[in-house]
Amino acid sequence: MPSRSADDDPRLGDVSEGTILRAILARTAPATHTIIGPGDDAAVIATPSGSVVATTDTLVHGPDFRLAWSSGYDLGWKSAAVNLADVAAMGARPTALLVALAVPRDLRLSFVEQMTDGLRAACEALAPGCAVVGGDLTVSDVLTVAVTALGDLEGRDAVTRSGARLGDVVAIAGELGHAAHGLAVLFGRFRDGDTPVPIDSSALESGERAALDAQLRPAPPIGLGVMAAVAGATAMMDVSDGLALDAGRLAAASGVTLDLARAALGANSERALAGGEDHALLATFPPSVLPPGFRIIGEVLEQGAESVLCDGEPVDAAGWDPYRDWDSTTG
Amino acid sequence: MPSRSADDDPRLGDVSEGTILRAILARTAPATHTIIGPGDDAAVIATPSGSVVATTDTLVHGPDFRLAWSSGYDLGWKSAAVNLADVAAMGARPTALLVALAVPRDLRLSFVEQMTDGLRAACEALAPGCAVVGGDLTVSDVLTVAVTALGDLEGRDAVTRSGARLGDVVAIAGELGHAAHGLAVLFGRFRDGDTPVPIDSSALESGERAALDAQLRPAPPIGLGVMAAVAGATAMMDVSDGLALDAGRLAAASGVTLDLARAALGANSERALAGGEDHALLATFPPSVLPPGFRIIGEVLEQGAESVLCDGEPVDAAGWDPYRDWDSTTG
Repeated sequence: MPSRSADDDPRLGDVSEGTILRAILARTAPATHTIIGPGDDAAVIATPSGSVVATTDTLVHGPDFRLAWSSGYDLGWKSAAVNLADVAAMGARPTALLVALAVPRDLRLSFVEQMTDGLRAACEALAPGCAVVGGDLTVSDVLTVAVTALGDLEGRDAVTRSGARLGDVVAIAGELGHAAHGLAVLFGRFRDGDTPVPIDSSALESGERAALDAQLRPAPPIGLGVMAAVAGATAMMDVSDGLALDAGRLAAASGVTLDLARAALGANSERALAGGEDHALLATFPPSVLPPGFRIIGEVLEQGAESVLCDGEPVDAAGWDPYRDWDSTTG
Repeated sequence: MPSRSADDDPRLGDVSEGTILRAILARTAPATHTIIGPGDDAAVIATPSGSVVATTDTLVHGPDFRLAWSSGYDLGWKSAAVNLADVAAMGARPTALLVALAVPRDLRLSFVEQMTDGLRAACEALAPGCAVVGGDLTVSDVLTVAVTALGDLEGRDAVTRSGARLGDVVAIAGELGHAAHGLAVLFGRFRDGDTPVPIDSSALESGERAALDAQLRPAPPIGLGVMAAVAGATAMMDVSDGLALDAGRLAAASGVTLDLARAALGANSERALAGGEDHALLATFPPSVLPPGFRIIGEVLEQGAESVLCDGEPVDAAGWDPYRDWDSTTG
């Protein structure tokens, strides 16, 4: 991580809004679809297909990330990635991001610069051609990043949650349970009492680095969203609240039951079923059209009493509910 | 304002995310341009003109509003209005909003319901056909509302800040200085020490109710944005940081100087020049095409040493900078 002296890295409260915006804009890449980019009242983005896909997702310091664990770069990357995944899950190609940033006055300018770099890097790595086209900067005691992502369907219909059909296969692209593993490592190993402490990389065991990366800097398979749509996915969604809970949502929307195969869920199938923040793509396909990058994890059955089964047995669909699971006093 | 017993109005921390979302969706109107609305990974909005206008603006408890002064309805209304104004300022028709809401756990469910009502009412009053099509709900100790607004140019070019030409008139639609007057009333009269206290309507003097409304529930002339574009506006922007500062931005982007006529700025021209949060539309037009709803406040001159003049004299362009003007300890 680049560092510099505090003299050369002012607190946001000590510089003008213009200074902060110039620092951000200097590090922002142009988006392929931009007609008018940052600097006016609003951005204008080309929508060749005549529709636009739009989603928003917010990361709040405390429940969603901790500064002891996430760098500015990580935060920028993750805030882009989680939104890009929602666009991909509709079968669309991400075209543009808008970033609403609420920052404490004592935050350093370099943090915002690193965040901008992380946003840019995530777009370049996961969704080439997509970039930040606008945003808003305000002050808050709680660092908050609300990103809106736009996407283009390129003439295709959107792939919703409601199209799964009897006889389809259930498939996944991306990892399951790693982000939850990473969160468990952070909460279990890098706290002093209830206070998060910096990650000591030398203390990490095999596999833990990858789990932390999945949690702090997720790399969902964004490009496979378009691939799935082109191949003929009947339903698709982003797995953000745990596979069991999200599969249940897809099943309910489609009026079917999904039967998952535990053996297809990896070494820790319970974690795969319950863990949140995977941002994997869950999709159903007619068996003959499964595209590369997706692996079969189950099949679509007629709607029964349970929306999700695992090897034919009911599953406890407890996923991530920020209200239930987060406590501001204990972290 | 409807009220109900605390038993029937749970705190957000005591109910599930699903309960909150259902309460919001039950009160959300459909948008005219929606292809896929709330409930999937992302919304899909029709963009008949092949482009989409997109902007985001955030309201944070503390610097941007106080719960002692703003009801949930007010907050929803204002968070819609300020974003609709940015879309209008491009000459576009607002089509859809996305709302990212970060809420403290002890907030009442009725507050979120009223906020949803306010969002809906502002759309219906200011931008018929536009509505909330998606959003995000997360938990934060600081109530934060980040709205993204989308709009359609209906085949026209966007009206940017950079097109003002020598000989154009400078015109305004909407009020100047009222929102700043309202803020002064709030800070001057409805605090106990540094603590905001509820507004006592019986204590308001003539004109103060309108000023409070302009501050708490602004009604910018959204429809006139399209009217201005159709009429042939050469440049346009939303006046959010004070007329002097924003006129300077338009002048700089256009490479001209704007000379404003003090007599056209109302009884309190200093407040009109300095006050923020007007959300009036500032535009330039060839003199022959000024549309109804706009009033002339000046003329476009060749670029000189100053970007903005008032009756030929330099203006102090001090506007609203949230970093400079807000102090979390004193409010």
